[in-house]
Amino acid sequence: MLKVNTCYGKLDSELLTRLSCVKLVAFDVDGTLTDGGIYYDNQNNEIKKFNVKDGFGVVALVNEGLECAVITGRNAPLTERRMQDLKVQHIIQGERDKGTALEKLCEQLKISPDETVCFGDDINDMPMFRKTGVVVCPHDAHPFVKNHADYVTTLNGGCGAMRELCDLILMAKGIMTPDGGFVDERY
Amino acid sequence: MLKVNTCYGKLDSELLTRLSCVKLVAFDVDGTLTDGGIYYDNQNNEIKKFNVKDGFGVVALVNEGLECAVITGRNAPLTERRMQDLKVQHIIQGERDKGTALEKLCEQLKISPDETVCFGDDINDMPMFRKTGVVVCPHDAHPFVKNHADYVTTLNGGCGAMRELCDLILMAKGIMTPDGGFVDERY
Amino acid sequence: MLKVNTCYGKLDSELLTRLSCVKLVAFDVDGTLTDGGIYYDNQNNEIKKFNVKDGFGVVALVNEGLECAVITGRNAPLTERRMQDLKVQHIIQGERDKGTALEKLCEQLKISPDETVCFGDDINDMPMFRKTGVVVCPHDAHPFVKNHADYVTTLNGGCGAMRELCDLILMAKGIMTPDGGFVDERY
Amino acid sequence: MLKVNTCYGKLDSELLTRLSCVKLVAFDVDGTLTDGGIYYDNQNNEIKKFNVKDGFGVVALVNEGLECAVITGRNAPLTERRMQDLKVQHIIQGERDKGTALEKLCEQLKISPDETVCFGDDINDMPMFRKTGVVVCPHDAHPFVKNHADYVTTLNGGCGAMRELCDLILMAKGIMTPDGGFVDERY
Repeated sequence: MLKVNTCYGKLDSELLTRLSCVKLVAFDVDGTLTDGGIYYDNQNNEIKKFNVKDGFGVVALVNEGLECAVITGRNAPLTERRMQDLKVQHIIQGERDKGTALEKLCEQLKISPDETVCFGDDINDMPMFRKTGVVVCPHDAHPFVKNHADYVTTLNGGCGAMRELCDLILMAKGIMTPDGGFVDERY
Repeated sequence: MLKVNTCYGKLDSELLTRLSCVKLVAFDVDGTLTDGGIYYDNQNNEIKKFNVKDGFGVVALVNEGLECAVITGRNAPLTERRMQDLKVQHIIQGERDKGTALEKLCEQLKISPDETVCFGDDINDMPMFRKTGVVVCPHDAHPFVKNHADYVTTLNGGCGAMRELCDLILMAKGIMTPDGGFVDERY
Repeated sequence: MLKVNTCYGKLDSELLTRLSCVKLVAFDVDGTLTDGGIYYDNQNNEIKKFNVKDGFGVVALVNEGLECAVITGRNAPLTERRMQDLKVQHIIQGERDKGTALEKLCEQLKISPDETVCFGDDINDMPMFRKTGVVVCPHDAHPFVKNHADYVTTLNGGCGAMRELCDLILMAKGIMTPDGGFVDERY
Repeated sequence: MLKVNTCYGKLDSELLTRLSCVKLVAFDVDGTLTDGGIYYDNQNNEIKKFNVKDGFGVVALVNEGLECAVITGRNAPLTERRMQDLKVQHIIQGERDKGTALEKLCEQLKISPDETVCFGDDINDMPMFRKTGVVVCPHDAHPFVKNHADYVTTLNGGCGAMRELCDLILMAKGIMTPDGGFVDERY
């Protein structure tokens, strides 16, 4: 298979072709945007640790006109806040059936499943994976998920895995060069 | 010894046979469900970092009708909250003698010690280990504990070690396939 | 190229020559002074994890009369607090154009760009890097940044990377010995 | 040199001989009992992440009648709280001259410097190291400190390094066996 050199290693050119058509990027939160850590304290509060590089990537996707959707089984005000900071257009929390949620969103946005990529780390993401064009998971995803992914990021969840996916999408669309810089040298 | 291929590597078939009979899963908190981190702040608050993949595994055990018991020497409202979220049936905190606690629980539930598995990471878990059928510890457990374990998980405490144990139990019982997916394809 | 043995490995003597002239040290926060973690809770609070060794290094630079400037795109009271604790003279937050910010600071302080070193981890630091004499990034910086750096620290962001840079500057200036101790044995 | 097999690897028998005489164990906090992380939030609060295994070790030392002293350059109520939980007898915070602090404590307790061990990770611990019988540092200590240590733990600060030291002291005194269990099988 044809390979393309990128700053994340050699990639199948076919994967990049599929990513070049993506209009909707759907992703999980815990274990995907985080390392899976659920911090509880003694005052009924909860903390999650997001990643600044991931945030940069999501904002870049939104700025390029892509639809971003977080689809998570858990429910936390802090996730809503973080996603709003990143201008994520679709925030779906407490979702038990992620597959149907993705399907509905595709219908609503008139986007074909082939034009979506899904990013998740555990087996409750499988129903979502069956309705998408490209399945991506972090390096430290559950082994069952890794076996079913089209692409496993080189980075772990919460440690830049989301940024890696964002960069690859932007490279596939010709907005970024394979070394991870923007074509228009905006930075 | 006969080996079985799983997504966590090759396992002794005898271990899986023993796990197939398990009715009660007893586990420690600090260093087992966490990486051992005890977070203190300046306002008398405490934080622990649990793991979303571990939580998924515990909920799956409970849903399959297994008894789950957390037995910990420390005492924190946040532990009670997390365990309640996961539907853990038995929450025993501030326990100095974990061995007796396990014994009492077995009597109360009319479960034989051979039908229990214990998961802990430090030498204060030893009394509990002496009263159980299967001793399991995380990869980063205290060396003394690792020497006495029937199985050392491939993952560290707080980083999916509990999930690994839950998956192995579900595999042993034929509820999960050796690749970590559910037989009934519920996901 | 001539190499010098230090406790951080062999370094180009030319790098040390350039660092010996530095009067202003400008650095990013997220991913540079931290591992990139952005902690959110459910009560509108945010947390960042700084590093005690980094703090020691920054205080040492300030005590030696160097100008220190934090230049970050984000905005958080906690960053101001930490920088004040470390006696950092210039705290520039919410900055979209880090390049212009550095230029203005150089003019204000009458310091030539060649007498500055910039430390950052992501591509929004590039405009700042184009206006400085020496570009440094942490070991886990974005790959595009690593490709453009004069020096990549052996340590990761938030794990002593800033301290490594501080030590190298102090070594270059003859204040520290190559083994990381102070020449005047103040400790 | 004669070597002794322990669960932390082969150790010089001479180190164990010196540890067998120890009456006072003095240790730093940041980078030693923690990974060096200083967590700040937006509400003037601070967090440190301690380790449960370290705590177990310190309590064991105190229970065996050893004097424990925390000597730190920083100052935080949370450190006082954690040290009190562990029954540490001497809590010295905001100390600029750790060497003199140790000296005074030795005089007060009528303990010879040869009967003390000091555990720290950075060069501001050096004055304390010059007044002690045995210098120990974590695996991820500052390189200058590692070069001056009698023993570098196999574990990192905040990840069991303190526990390793506690275990070695208890082994040296014949309270623990070289595999890390207690001779009296109290667990």
